[in-house]
Amino acid sequence: MSIRNISAEGSWFIEFNTPFSWHVRGVKRVLYSGTTKYQRVAVVEFEDLGKALILDGKVQSSFYDEFVYHESLVHPVMITHPNPRRVLILGGGEGATAREVLRHRSVEEVVMVDIDNEVLRLVKEYLPEMSQGVFEDSRFKLVIDDGRKFLERSRDKYDVIILDLTDPLEGGPSYLLYTVEFYSIVRDRLSDDGLMVTQATSTSYSLRTFATIYRTIASVFPIARAYQVYMHSFDSTWGFVIGSKRLDPASLSLEDVNGRIRERIGKELRFYEGDIHRALFALPKHIRAVLEDKSIMPATDKNPTFLPA
Amino acid sequence: MSIRNISAEGSWFIEFNTPFSWHVRGVKRVLYSGTTKYQRVAVVEFEDLGKALILDGKVQSSFYDEFVYHESLVHPVMITHPNPRRVLILGGGEGATAREVLRHRSVEEVVMVDIDNEVLRLVKEYLPEMSQGVFEDSRFKLVIDDGRKFLERSRDKYDVIILDLTDPLEGGPSYLLYTVEFYSIVRDRLSDDGLMVTQATSTSYSLRTFATIYRTIASVFPIARAYQVYMHSFDSTWGFVIGSKRLDPASLSLEDVNGRIRERIGKELRFYEGDIHRALFALPKHIRAVLEDKSIMPATDKNPTFLPA
Amino acid sequence: MSIRNISAEGSWFIEFNTPFSWHVRGVKRVLYSGTTKYQRVAVVEFEDLGKALILDGKVQSSFYDEFVYHESLVHPVMITHPNPRRVLILGGGEGATAREVLRHRSVEEVVMVDIDNEVLRLVKEYLPEMSQGVFEDSRFKLVIDDGRKFLERSRDKYDVIILDLTDPLEGGPSYLLYTVEFYSIVRDRLSDDGLMVTQATSTSYSLRTFATIYRTIASVFPIARAYQVYMHSFDSTWGFVIGSKRLDPASLSLEDVNGRIRERIGKELRFYEGDIHRALFALPKHIRAVLEDKSIMPATDKNPTFLPA
Amino acid sequence: MSIRNISAEGSWFIEFNTPFSWHVRGVKRVLYSGTTKYQRVAVVEFEDLGKALILDGKVQSSFYDEFVYHESLVHPVMITHPNPRRVLILGGGEGATAREVLRHRSVEEVVMVDIDNEVLRLVKEYLPEMSQGVFEDSRFKLVIDDGRKFLERSRDKYDVIILDLTDPLEGGPSYLLYTVEFYSIVRDRLSDDGLMVTQATSTSYSLRTFATIYRTIASVFPIARAYQVYMHSFDSTWGFVIGSKRLDPASLSLEDVNGRIRERIGKELRFYEGDIHRALFALPKHIRAVLEDKSIMPATDKNPTFLPA
Repeated sequence: MSIRNISAEGSWFIEFNTPFSWHVRGVKRVLYSGTTKYQRVAVVEFEDLGKALILDGKVQSSFYDEFVYHESLVHPVMITHPNPRRVLILGGGEGATAREVLRHRSVEEVVMVDIDNEVLRLVKEYLPEMSQGVFEDSRFKLVIDDGRKFLERSRDKYDVIILDLTDPLEGGPSYLLYTVEFYSIVRDRLSDDGLMVTQATSTSYSLRTFATIYRTIASVFPIARAYQVYMHSFDSTWGFVIGSKRLDPASLSLEDVNGRIRERIGKELRFYEGDIHRALFALPKHIRAVLEDKSIMPATDKNPTFLPA
Repeated sequence: MSIRNISAEGSWFIEFNTPFSWHVRGVKRVLYSGTTKYQRVAVVEFEDLGKALILDGKVQSSFYDEFVYHESLVHPVMITHPNPRRVLILGGGEGATAREVLRHRSVEEVVMVDIDNEVLRLVKEYLPEMSQGVFEDSRFKLVIDDGRKFLERSRDKYDVIILDLTDPLEGGPSYLLYTVEFYSIVRDRLSDDGLMVTQATSTSYSLRTFATIYRTIASVFPIARAYQVYMHSFDSTWGFVIGSKRLDPASLSLEDVNGRIRERIGKELRFYEGDIHRALFALPKHIRAVLEDKSIMPATDKNPTFLPA
Repeated sequence: MSIRNISAEGSWFIEFNTPFSWHVRGVKRVLYSGTTKYQRVAVVEFEDLGKALILDGKVQSSFYDEFVYHESLVHPVMITHPNPRRVLILGGGEGATAREVLRHRSVEEVVMVDIDNEVLRLVKEYLPEMSQGVFEDSRFKLVIDDGRKFLERSRDKYDVIILDLTDPLEGGPSYLLYTVEFYSIVRDRLSDDGLMVTQATSTSYSLRTFATIYRTIASVFPIARAYQVYMHSFDSTWGFVIGSKRLDPASLSLEDVNGRIRERIGKELRFYEGDIHRALFALPKHIRAVLEDKSIMPATDKNPTFLPA
Repeated sequence: MSIRNISAEGSWFIEFNTPFSWHVRGVKRVLYSGTTKYQRVAVVEFEDLGKALILDGKVQSSFYDEFVYHESLVHPVMITHPNPRRVLILGGGEGATAREVLRHRSVEEVVMVDIDNEVLRLVKEYLPEMSQGVFEDSRFKLVIDDGRKFLERSRDKYDVIILDLTDPLEGGPSYLLYTVEFYSIVRDRLSDDGLMVTQATSTSYSLRTFATIYRTIASVFPIARAYQVYMHSFDSTWGFVIGSKRLDPASLSLEDVNGRIRERIGKELRFYEGDIHRALFALPKHIRAVLEDKSIMPATDKNPTFLPA
């Protein structure tokens, strides 16, 4: 591969994981680039990752491994719940999160609340492969609204609430969706067996933010579980945190998981299965040590957590 | 300026001047990116340079200093000629070269021959500020064709021929427009007082290519003159070479130049004027030394010159 | 973090994972940079990873997570073997691989064969924290030699052979240490319960190379097992492959692993433990699919495998 | 040139001209990298520019074109002065500025005042080609001191004062050497025919800073002249400003300059000569417009000018 080929296009995407650690990716084609009312949006085709959605300069998902991210976000809580019928998604613009939820035959309704109508329009136009028709599914309901406002007004109960949000960036649209106050509202909207899960930033580049989200959820829910998966598109291991009222995802055996996938979904998934479930929760000691660090305080509306930048 | 701001978009353009020397520029917006029959095209808005046209990964011109490039390309030959009426442009997609030519009241006809219709369409749609309506000027005639084929077929004579071409890249569309054979055809299409000028690549990053173009033209024309100007958008000093049948641009005094600008154009230009004309031709010794290097052979169709890559 | 701070030093390290995917890291200090008889060497202090050894432009290990790499390389085979006494290391310049081997009380002798004496000198001078005195351990024996030649001459038998080599780069010193012929020699030098392990490149950036190494070892050993771990310093998940004559590392239970660590090492390790052992071998379906791809042929001396570049 | 070759070393230097415009250069070898009492220092060998001195992340000079910089800084004032005997240099660590001054036979004494003894030591050790023995010249006198303090204490008069300083960076060692107060001290230390010159940052990346320095000097000296030269190593055109008590460098003819070079230096220089002198002062309109912008206030100790960063 010669420099001539590399420079043939000249267009690159740089993700600044930290001020001292960047990832540079070759861009084959820019399908869209612009600014919505809420954020900067780009849809690009990477040389290596295929098509991808980028919000405020951070890759949200790419064809290369969006299934790894969305299956890891959705299925651990869905499988842990004995019979999830009503599911709420906050964020989840691409529609891939709803796509995974709807694989569960038990599901009767999925409500997806996203603040940015423009991003949804772009995703439908440029990334239809991600939603695979869920926007037309009769069980699917879309609400354009601020997720927190929606929950505050709502009186409905959900079996599972999935927070598929952008990172808590200072000045960004999401940082108040990672606080004690917010998670308390989420808890109150969950049924008795209910579980919530949130993406929780990189466990490599922002381990303390990951730990803060874990400790915040642990201060609100009787059961809190943190897990991670390697995301090539995010250039790091990615964290998730579950808050649960009664059921413990970590207690599921390999067989439990595979059995429920069979009954409830009826066929194998691309990534998630019994031994992957187990591996997701096997956090190394040096990460566990930070999660247990009592000097890390829960995030509140007054003192939110922000990604280091 | 914090890294957050820098990464806000995440989209960058990298120009590989050499494998070991690259320029990285922040991109505010990508207006278009795609591939024509002949080359890869991008129209972007840079954070620092404003809107720009990029062909095969090389910035062709930007709002920041396209006037410096186009005035330096066009006016030295136009001003040297006593009464230029018929002018031929090969390349010049943006229309800015024709724009500068048409400032000269003496001009009765400008023929522009560009091979890539699609680029012309994109330029009209995304960069109308560059052509400023010349495409509608009654004196302007557009021909979509291969420049060399056009000249071989043509029997017309021109007072000035301007070669506003992409660099001679191996496998690119232009490398056969920098050879003895081609310049001989150009010479034969010039009137007795005729001059030609070509862009001649970077005098910093590809000095030997610049010298090869100079020595090639010097082997075909009785008078050859090389000059350079600093182009911020090209990240270097840029070279031009004039081939002339009789008139010597270097012999014009500061007053000659300013006088002819007054009569023939009637108002000041943004960049080009008498003392700039003089400065353009004041090449430093270490560049003159390479221009005079007899071991550098003229480029021929059999042994063309290519940009180092 | 402002751009001023970033540019304060101006020195960066770029690792070209592929021509279209690079990682850029801020360098605080360059402790050494030069070229030995075999490779280019740099010892730098990264802003984020601390001190690191770089060979031929690839980070070999950094203070940030060298323990993850070296524990993942060494302990799965060592723990699987009931009583490893004689261990051979090929490569392992930093001394950290020997350091981990010597934690096992059963070990009577470790022979380390490295080709590059100069790298060893630099490591002792600039990275003593990595070897932690093993070079002085009475059980440790250093041989400066070509690893393959050494094995061909040797008649000794080893319980465990650890291949801690640089990647198989075309023209590099290591590509003939990833072939059927070489692994057959390794097998013949192993005792009846013997196991070998090799680093096997990135499972994200060079999955086919990883699969080729797996399929090559599977063609030589009755038991072959592939596993991976996330290495932040390598910017990806990293692969390892075990070849075994009789014992299967995948059959060890969480309790087996923790029990043997207790008896044989006597204290906890920083990274490796029972559930990590299990997680290492839990490869996702899309990786398993490539490992099972029968169109991927074993590498031979005539047709070696090379990293894509 | 393949990516393998590029990544062979992996060490790069990035100069952040602005947060949105960076230059990336391949580093062949890092000869030294460390921090003195005043600044961060690196001496590297670039793949393209050869050996170079880097202070606080900015290339100060490289073998590729240090002669262009130092001749452009030194000779215009030296040639304008009829008989320069006593010359003061503030800064000028590499010794190349003194080297050019000492080419003038009229010179009886050069005093060089630099604050950073450690940089001088490193330059002598790693870049002796720059000073070419001037540190041993009987007419050369070195003073390790703060340049401004030295001038405040000194009662001596100089024919020429050359300010070869680092850029006015906030928090850097030099920003108080670009103010009305400082230039007034300089003026008072000049003989009646005396001239001073200062480097004045990039005319491409920091045109307003260049203009501020010009307008500051113009507020202190009866005659102020700004000029620029293209510096490949600085990736831009570079500015200089002369302050003069009586003599006007712009009034010298091409012949004056060449004549004085002959008598006073006795042989040709590598870069500077009559027509280059003239070209240096031929600033384009868009730069002159900013220099004449009356809204740009002179810099004072209370309101200094800083490089945008």
